[in-house]
Amino acid sequence: MNQPIPHPTVTAPASELIERLHWRYAAKKMDPAKAVPQDKVERILEAARLAPTSSGLQPYEILVVTDPAVRARIQPIAWNQAQITEGSHLLVFAAWDHYTAERINHMFDLTNEVRGFRSEGWENYRNMLLSAYPQRDPEVNFQHAARQAYIGLSAAMVAAAFEEVDCTPMEGFDPAALDEILGLRARGLRSAVILPLGYRQPEGDWLVNLQKVRRPRSEFITEV
Amino acid sequence: MNQPIPHPTVTAPASELIERLHWRYAAKKMDPAKAVPQDKVERILEAARLAPTSSGLQPYEILVVTDPAVRARIQPIAWNQAQITEGSHLLVFAAWDHYTAERINHMFDLTNEVRGFRSEGWENYRNMLLSAYPQRDPEVNFQHAARQAYIGLSAAMVAAAFEEVDCTPMEGFDPAALDEILGLRARGLRSAVILPLGYRQPEGDWLVNLQKVRRPRSEFITEV
Repeated sequence: MNQPIPHPTVTAPASELIERLHWRYAAKKMDPAKAVPQDKVERILEAARLAPTSSGLQPYEILVVTDPAVRARIQPIAWNQAQITEGSHLLVFAAWDHYTAERINHMFDLTNEVRGFRSEGWENYRNMLLSAYPQRDPEVNFQHAARQAYIGLSAAMVAAAFEEVDCTPMEGFDPAALDEILGLRARGLRSAVILPLGYRQPEGDWLVNLQKVRRPRSEFITEV
Repeated sequence: MNQPIPHPTVTAPASELIERLHWRYAAKKMDPAKAVPQDKVERILEAARLAPTSSGLQPYEILVVTDPAVRARIQPIAWNQAQITEGSHLLVFAAWDHYTAERINHMFDLTNEVRGFRSEGWENYRNMLLSAYPQRDPEVNFQHAARQAYIGLSAAMVAAAFEEVDCTPMEGFDPAALDEILGLRARGLRSAVILPLGYRQPEGDWLVNLQKVRRPRSEFITEV
């Protein structure tokens, strides 16, 4: 009688993740003829949406810019980095410019609605945030919100690697100019980081064949 | 002749990642009797080490605190959150307090060493950073470095989810007190965020059975 041959299970649970992190790099040249399929974009966005944030507030939004004319306007205010127009999608992570009572209440109300009940502990936590965040300097709040956006950025980059989609995280742009192009300030948002999605074009990419460099574990990790 | 039965390949490349993100949550109660095996901790740290950072500078370090006495000192300066001592490992993401010429040069020298050559473009980029970063306000540099630490934090949380290890990201601690306990300032580091690792203890965890809440796609994503 034929026994099913078990698949090898020698790989560790996170080994594919680690392999995918080795595979990815910040593509310097993308192929303008290849568009990322929408189902892949959706899974990349979904990973960001599911990523955790401080107090669950998700204090940022993602703009998915595909319009070639808009991306052509963004490229010159981003050191002319070509991936912005060579890729097929540009993700703009735009953080809340401030934590307002309205925004905090919206998330707590949504949570109560989804879970179907109110709890005293959760309402106390809401009140604690309401008494602390809206009174703080908006710049402090934006910086805090931007950090949360980076958690989503990282989740999106990992998801892209699983989808074999290339992406190039970029901080090198004029945030005020980008906010203006996308009308972000009127929506209470400020651009924090951008991420073109596309496919690497090895010809003309100086980085594609170079080894990934990271500090060794001994310079990165300390045990206490 | 027996044909091998192909495994179903209906799942999308990032579907397991998305499943893992649904599985994870910020455990509110960890089981003090269960320690995370070291090989799992290593893969979680490796994911953070491989995560991308701005200009590849990796401007942070991770301290892995297992010493129960040290964790017992940290808990009271972190709102007494019990996971700090209930978990088996506490990861402290400590960002550079400043971008110094020495730190920038170290990463560029390491890159040249690993890749086995110097290029004019890369050296120009080094000089651009050297002329920009060390002169900036150290607080601006720390904030920038802390954002990069959040990319590693997110990669570590994803890796933990693949390893079925629970983790609870925490910003609720007194950074100056934590820096003092761990002697971070003398090393040019400042604590940015902490992450206990352990295993959820469903009894006594008010969050474990509650639904994860995220804003719907329509409130999170805008197409342009």
